[in-house]
Amino acid sequence: MTYEINETHDINLKSWVESANDPNTDFPIQNLPFCIFYNNEKHEQIHIGVLIGDFVLDLDACYDKDFFDETYKEFLGNKRLWSCLDGLMDFTLEKRFELRKRTQQLLSESFTEKEELENFLHKRADCVFEDNPAVIGDYTDFYASVFHATNVGAMFRPDNPLLPNYKWVPIGYHGRASSIVVSGTEIKRPKGQNRADAEQPPVYIPCKNFDYEMEVGFFVGKGNQMGETIPIENAEEHIFGLCLVNDWSARDIQAWEYQPLGPFLAKNFATTISPFVVTMEALAPFRTNAFVRDEGDPQPLPHLYSEQNQRQGGFDINLEVYLQTKKMREEGEAPFLLSKSNTKDLYWTFAQMLTHHASNGCNLQTGDLMASGTVSGREKNERGCLLELTWRGKEPIELPNGETRRFLEDYDEIIMKGYCEREGFRRIGFGECRGMILPAD
Amino acid sequence: MTYEINETHDINLKSWVESANDPNTDFPIQNLPFCIFYNNEKHEQIHIGVLIGDFVLDLDACYDKDFFDETYKEFLGNKRLWSCLDGLMDFTLEKRFELRKRTQQLLSESFTEKEELENFLHKRADCVFEDNPAVIGDYTDFYASVFHATNVGAMFRPDNPLLPNYKWVPIGYHGRASSIVVSGTEIKRPKGQNRADAEQPPVYIPCKNFDYEMEVGFFVGKGNQMGETIPIENAEEHIFGLCLVNDWSARDIQAWEYQPLGPFLAKNFATTISPFVVTMEALAPFRTNAFVRDEGDPQPLPHLYSEQNQRQGGFDINLEVYLQTKKMREEGEAPFLLSKSNTKDLYWTFAQMLTHHASNGCNLQTGDLMASGTVSGREKNERGCLLELTWRGKEPIELPNGETRRFLEDYDEIIMKGYCEREGFRRIGFGECRGMILPAD
Repeated sequence: MTYEINETHDINLKSWVESANDPNTDFPIQNLPFCIFYNNEKHEQIHIGVLIGDFVLDLDACYDKDFFDETYKEFLGNKRLWSCLDGLMDFTLEKRFELRKRTQQLLSESFTEKEELENFLHKRADCVFEDNPAVIGDYTDFYASVFHATNVGAMFRPDNPLLPNYKWVPIGYHGRASSIVVSGTEIKRPKGQNRADAEQPPVYIPCKNFDYEMEVGFFVGKGNQMGETIPIENAEEHIFGLCLVNDWSARDIQAWEYQPLGPFLAKNFATTISPFVVTMEALAPFRTNAFVRDEGDPQPLPHLYSEQNQRQGGFDINLEVYLQTKKMREEGEAPFLLSKSNTKDLYWTFAQMLTHHASNGCNLQTGDLMASGTVSGREKNERGCLLELTWRGKEPIELPNGETRRFLEDYDEIIMKGYCEREGFRRIGFGECRGMILPAD
Repeated sequence: MTYEINETHDINLKSWVESANDPNTDFPIQNLPFCIFYNNEKHEQIHIGVLIGDFVLDLDACYDKDFFDETYKEFLGNKRLWSCLDGLMDFTLEKRFELRKRTQQLLSESFTEKEELENFLHKRADCVFEDNPAVIGDYTDFYASVFHATNVGAMFRPDNPLLPNYKWVPIGYHGRASSIVVSGTEIKRPKGQNRADAEQPPVYIPCKNFDYEMEVGFFVGKGNQMGETIPIENAEEHIFGLCLVNDWSARDIQAWEYQPLGPFLAKNFATTISPFVVTMEALAPFRTNAFVRDEGDPQPLPHLYSEQNQRQGGFDINLEVYLQTKKMREEGEAPFLLSKSNTKDLYWTFAQMLTHHASNGCNLQTGDLMASGTVSGREKNERGCLLELTWRGKEPIELPNGETRRFLEDYDEIIMKGYCEREGFRRIGFGECRGMILPAD
């Protein structure tokens, strides 16, 4: 089963929530990403919500007030089973589709009981999104941009930028689940061992080369049993939806610690994700072919290859990274665009990453998060982190107000955005993934 | 606060549970490791237990039947708060000590109501230990044996076996939490990419070089908030107890995948732990100095150094690895001793690993598991994995029955044991960490 473009993507569908019909909103009725939220003024418990224009529709309340009739209730099961997003992520594809269809009905212009529903609509600005949308059991970060891998490789191994395994293996490593936080959480500059001078002992000091990485993550829907693999043909049935990811990176700590077992303290102090999960169903119109391999590149091994994955395993998601410094904020200047990139430039598809991850029988679990690695493109302005943009700090970025940046400074804020556009379809967006840096202790 | 040797370690203490007084038992009254278990015949729910001789004392039942009086109840809090081991791991040191003292009283020879307590005693052989003793949020594996790191380095980088960071940084990496299983779980041989021949494309086949790694792990007790560090002086207050760990390793997959981000599929298909958690309190008599650094070795950086840690940050735990092949099992031959090693030979202490882990503000959580990495010693027969013992398969091991092993074969079982001995104290043990290999699909 794949996610076909269907009536839920009809560009002419409109919502009775007026702000959802604004062509620039991230959240038209064709998107409907999930979140968990609470409204400080109205309830203290976490509810499941769906983003619509400038509002959040409280799905829990809709369920309690019988906006899902008995057929739905029977079909969707006891609400307690899906009263956290993990429960919902575990739905079959059929259930997910029915829930999408019904939610879209409830929010569509033609829905007759909208007055009652308005009670369950909360201004997004009044809502708090402070928890991760799922209980993330395990977090895996990949390295799927060949441009990123080549750039970084060129800095550290000029004669051998891309390792021989890169075009065969979707390289990834385990990250830290406990320190994944949602957009808006302030991030304290980490301390760590720095050995900038190889002639001197290392020192334990605040990170000097603080960086972000623009990534896209996906949540695992249905898991697999330990010892079982997931054929590439079925991989997308195990993906629930996507979010933005900022893989904060302490480059000086990383350079000193990462051999031979990979990055550790350089990454695990914090990872920021956007709080809204854009479903695979919503993304159906924005699928694209897998990365077109260069002549001479190997084809993926059979277990990582399917015609379907080649044809539309990719995602056409525009990504933007903005920086706002303290000075810019104080002087009312808008955030500065650092880069634009696109997930269609990833060398490996999410399906390939997931199939690879389970190819040794590793058991994936509902709510697990996997991220793409830095999404960089071919061009200089498509580089998804400062390490690449400033070429390890050698080519500082000049900001419009005269400030410069090699790496991030205290009180800098990084703002990531993602959105999809295609002729004949409504634009859909991911919202933002923000984080401001606080000084080290 | 440190774990002093006190009256609970008195060698003359005896239990009314006779098998606990056997000098060879792993579980005398001076040990009292925790577990979660159920007795198939008596209850289906998981209970917290304490190992004593050949039995398990049901702590939940003791609590329910008022063997912890009001003072204890008030002190220990609502049982629901500690009815899983994670809850108990979160106890303050004072609570942990009081619980140990009271449990020891209940089981001591002089206890007057032993007849009623006998109802809560289950033969270990009737009990099922099928769940991890804690909900492990994150799992980190270190690389703390300098002998292991040097041996492995020598195979892969003969001219530069030990990397320059090794003696400064307690090297570690994130492992997979979802695939941690308890002793006795059968482990299916993983498949993965193998590129034995660099002239040929890799192939996706069952692992050929299947290995174990003899490690010791520790569970995090109290956690820390994100952004906070844990001073080395307080590190052990955050360690609840220890278990045995088998870090199964697919060496052929590892060799091909591990650069530049570290081991991934070579490890995350399974990790086996022993089901009994030996507490820091029980281990107090078996503490030893930290690794004696060679002349010319740097002292640890100040944040990883304390006098207390140098003086007794280490653990004197004997480790043994046994192999039983299918043929040996069928012919009634006893398992064959592959190696003996000891955690006192680790270059970094657990306190240093934990302090390092949080030194960038990474938030550790109650129930997290950290493992030592392969515990190898100076001598050839102290090497804690086959990679080292057979020197990458070049020097096969000859078994007494004429079989040989480079790496593990299907239906081989690996049995790990751990125990502490010291003049003037009762021997205490960890039980076993077993796993048999099943063929790949």
